[in-house]
Amino acid sequence: MNNNVIFENAANWIKEAGERIKESFQTTLNIETKSNANDLVTNMDKETERFFISKIKEKFPEHKVLGEEGNGDDLEELSGVVWIIDPIDGTMNFVHQQRNFAISIGIYEDGVGKIGLIYDVVHDELYHAIKGQGAFVNDVRLSRLGEVTVSEAIIGINATWVTPNRRIDPSILGTLVRDARGTRSYGSAAIEIAQVAAGRLDAYMTLRLSPWDFAGGLVLIEEVGGMASTLKGEPIQLLEENSIFISKPGLHEEIMKEYLNKEW
Amino acid sequence: MNNNVIFENAANWIKEAGERIKESFQTTLNIETKSNANDLVTNMDKETERFFISKIKEKFPEHKVLGEEGNGDDLEELSGVVWIIDPIDGTMNFVHQQRNFAISIGIYEDGVGKIGLIYDVVHDELYHAIKGQGAFVNDVRLSRLGEVTVSEAIIGINATWVTPNRRIDPSILGTLVRDARGTRSYGSAAIEIAQVAAGRLDAYMTLRLSPWDFAGGLVLIEEVGGMASTLKGEPIQLLEENSIFISKPGLHEEIMKEYLNKEW
Repeated sequence: MNNNVIFENAANWIKEAGERIKESFQTTLNIETKSNANDLVTNMDKETERFFISKIKEKFPEHKVLGEEGNGDDLEELSGVVWIIDPIDGTMNFVHQQRNFAISIGIYEDGVGKIGLIYDVVHDELYHAIKGQGAFVNDVRLSRLGEVTVSEAIIGINATWVTPNRRIDPSILGTLVRDARGTRSYGSAAIEIAQVAAGRLDAYMTLRLSPWDFAGGLVLIEEVGGMASTLKGEPIQLLEENSIFISKPGLHEEIMKEYLNKEW
Repeated sequence: MNNNVIFENAANWIKEAGERIKESFQTTLNIETKSNANDLVTNMDKETERFFISKIKEKFPEHKVLGEEGNGDDLEELSGVVWIIDPIDGTMNFVHQQRNFAISIGIYEDGVGKIGLIYDVVHDELYHAIKGQGAFVNDVRLSRLGEVTVSEAIIGINATWVTPNRRIDPSILGTLVRDARGTRSYGSAAIEIAQVAAGRLDAYMTLRLSPWDFAGGLVLIEEVGGMASTLKGEPIQLLEENSIFISKPGLHEEIMKEYLNKEW
């Protein structure tokens, strides 16, 4: 696969899709509930996914597509070239704020991340990485991530995970929240992972994400020397829901050892 | 006092101060710790406060200034015209991210809010309100806030307040976090209050804020029909630290009644 040619196409399409989304703000949003009130889906989500699928299938007919809205291919494994797409990551922000959402694309070859794009549409910031060529926001190269400690760290984590929930004892992450310099929550996993890649957050963690939420971001994180695993410290599986813990080096080891390595 | 003349001066100064701050990104930031590692203060904080004080004292010598960095007047009461200024609200974001911070100014006459300005410097968004004339972001008028319920609400709250802390039983706000549609935390009280005024957050709450953190925002909130009180439901005191609960109408009553009206 020619990473640079594929990237050029993906970057053009993501900008075009962003323009269409911004134009849609003028007209009333047509909102459906996908599975519950916290999981909103809009006609722009579906339309944007169909836009990418039609572009990809026309230009690269042998590529496969895995998309949040389910209009892509049914994949049981990741052989060949696979585009993993979230047409609007942060749908709740899209609906409530008309900002702070992103289009996320990860392009994998035989399961290896080759290209990642995260487009923060309203702020017009395109984060991208091509494997071995570094990561960028617009035309500015991102620095490699340095080490920090918990007491110096700003961590992206939603308050949900430090209240009683089905996935983790809230005291485990609650202790981390109190020890860290600060916490933030922006409501879009793709944007939060991009902020870690850009060095603006030191870590990001959540208990449940789908492949389209992190596929693009993982390529960015690898290119800047960041760490990515589940909260159990295991490798992230690309075709499953995972817990996600993305971090600067040093901090990843400290949090795994001092906070997460216990009974949940 | 002539609100429009004062506003024009304040708006010009806030833009000029924003330019100076952006220029400072080129040079190394000189960071001191104010009282602990979570309360950073930079030379730009101090320099920006001195910039405002010198402009105000030159143009409006009879006005008083209350500022975070302590270079203003020592005030025991709010008679006359008082500018309440946070030169950089969200200092931790300023230091770590070089974005997501704001300059906040509230101008009060005999204790009544007349003018509020919150300038999100990097995104170049100036929120402002003049009493009786409505609220704006840049040149766009903000709508009056409508009613929402907890289950429809996105609430600005930091994860700290749902972990064990000295100010409130974490289960009180933890229940609210679970019942709400979602929560966000941006790390700048001024920006979070401005987001409530703009309808992008439905409420914002925190257990401890100083007057300069909320003085500008309260004028905005009043102009769009929002509610503001402490978390105990009491009036906010302008010369003291307060807990703060700012919200759309309807939601304010529901949260006070169903969540906050109990033993802390």
